[in-house]
Amino acid sequence: MAVQVAVCGPGECTEREWDHAYETGRLLAGRGAVVVCGGLGGVMAAAAAGARTAGGTVVGVLPAADRAAAGPDLTVAVPTGLGQARNNVIVNAADALIAVGGSWGTLSEIALALRAGRIPVVQLGGWRVLDGEGRPAGGIVHAADPAAAVDATGLWDRRP
Amino acid sequence: MAVQVAVCGPGECTEREWDHAYETGRLLAGRGAVVVCGGLGGVMAAAAAGARTAGGTVVGVLPAADRAAAGPDLTVAVPTGLGQARNNVIVNAADALIAVGGSWGTLSEIALALRAGRIPVVQLGGWRVLDGEGRPAGGIVHAADPAAAVDATGLWDRRP
Amino acid sequence: MAVQVAVCGPGECTEREWDHAYETGRLLAGRGAVVVCGGLGGVMAAAAAGARTAGGTVVGVLPAADRAAAGPDLTVAVPTGLGQARNNVIVNAADALIAVGGSWGTLSEIALALRAGRIPVVQLGGWRVLDGEGRPAGGIVHAADPAAAVDATGLWDRRP
Amino acid sequence: MAVQVAVCGPGECTEREWDHAYETGRLLAGRGAVVVCGGLGGVMAAAAAGARTAGGTVVGVLPAADRAAAGPDLTVAVPTGLGQARNNVIVNAADALIAVGGSWGTLSEIALALRAGRIPVVQLGGWRVLDGEGRPAGGIVHAADPAAAVDATGLWDRRP
Repeated sequence: MAVQVAVCGPGECTEREWDHAYETGRLLAGRGAVVVCGGLGGVMAAAAAGARTAGGTVVGVLPAADRAAAGPDLTVAVPTGLGQARNNVIVNAADALIAVGGSWGTLSEIALALRAGRIPVVQLGGWRVLDGEGRPAGGIVHAADPAAAVDATGLWDRRP
Repeated sequence: MAVQVAVCGPGECTEREWDHAYETGRLLAGRGAVVVCGGLGGVMAAAAAGARTAGGTVVGVLPAADRAAAGPDLTVAVPTGLGQARNNVIVNAADALIAVGGSWGTLSEIALALRAGRIPVVQLGGWRVLDGEGRPAGGIVHAADPAAAVDATGLWDRRP
Repeated sequence: MAVQVAVCGPGECTEREWDHAYETGRLLAGRGAVVVCGGLGGVMAAAAAGARTAGGTVVGVLPAADRAAAGPDLTVAVPTGLGQARNNVIVNAADALIAVGGSWGTLSEIALALRAGRIPVVQLGGWRVLDGEGRPAGGIVHAADPAAAVDATGLWDRRP
Repeated sequence: MAVQVAVCGPGECTEREWDHAYETGRLLAGRGAVVVCGGLGGVMAAAAAGARTAGGTVVGVLPAADRAAAGPDLTVAVPTGLGQARNNVIVNAADALIAVGGSWGTLSEIALALRAGRIPVVQLGGWRVLDGEGRPAGGIVHAADPAAAVDATGLWDRRP
């Protein structure tokens, strides 16, 4: 089975975030990864569009119980009917998570991923989390651009 | 987006159920449908194998939080971490549900689909449900073989 | 912690079902059990009313994300936002399940409970499930009245 | 139905966090609120113990499918079987959320609550979230002690 990478981010995003998400989706599909996303607009739609343009497979894990709000570039829609509890399904379905931009929903996905502690979490821009001592809370890798973000997942590290 | 059809059934099945599920998966993929299943063994694995042999896309919606138990023929695995609550995700993700064989898990999926009342539910063999007056509880279409089951979804009715 | 018993049944019910559910709730509360239900109308509301009249604690596990539809006799409402996936939460929260009357939603709860195989399942009236050979599918205890249903859970069997 | 307030925080906590959570639970119960928590140790157990000492009702919404890990001071346990997706159930069940201390799980609950945007979110200590411009991400009220935290929910504002 192919590697699966979640691309998360706000449903309304800036042009720069759109470009970052699109390019991230495109690069992931180019490496053969299935892109998992929340299936709606903004960063989710951009990642889907980028992956699709590279011939990739995109899974949209939707909060609603139907596909009415599903974006146009999904290969498969999974309307969960779980509301925002679907964020944890996205996390469970991913071998790595790349977050583009920031929002409370996005942060919940980052936090759930780090709570589970099983997958690498990479941020492209977005919000910062400081622990009780004011230091960056551990576990997030920050990347400067989509190519660095994809590399930072570690999923394609050369193995001898 | 492609039509999505759930193929449900017990994780341990008879040879006949395996054949029915395999053929159902194969026929669905041949018509361009994405096959959604529970991602484990038995009927789920047979439907996945049949769909894959026809070049189709198969989504396995797993109860566990990881892919350890995922069958080998899935295109995409969605480990939900929801346990049997994932049965309702399978239902929500489907435009029609075909059940092959019977078990309590399978019956829960049939019941959740009919509770929602949005999609056709077709049974190939399996259990029977009688209402309080001893009559068959309404809503299930019974089919004699995989081709009839796929037709009975009504998803490919000729439209003038 | 107290024993917890789920009382399940249709959101619209007959007068006889109402009476059975009310009495079941009353008897359970009288034995010190917490009553778990779906938190809406019909059998759920009747069980809640019966338990409350006996001074019991009633938990309503709701499909919606808010309490707008919560019945008036709940001690605690748990709006899950999970839709019908909440049926599996009801099952997990229960040491035994008593179903009063029949519907697809009710049957999904019975089926999920028997799928998990951890708790006794008792039916007061309602639907019947026949397996592939036309025999009653195993695992359900049928009771004639509320007192027999409560006894049939086995939770209060005298132990020497 | 009583007001319901979620008290969230790490499953392993400092003595100061324990004291804060215990006192928060005690004060909430004193005002007649049902305390909703994650049902495990640390801050969750402290809030439960505090509420129970004041005669309050405590609901533990557990990640597991059974009650094995339930704390001793819960009035009701709701084992969801949803894993960390249960965090969104806690949020949906609350009229306000008070977070004591910080962890990724706690942050996921804060983020899910602010994503939904329906309830006040109060922090007693814990982590900080900065938006893309390095400013505190909006929506969280920070309180200095348990009494201030309970007041900051606004649930007991005097109404003329």
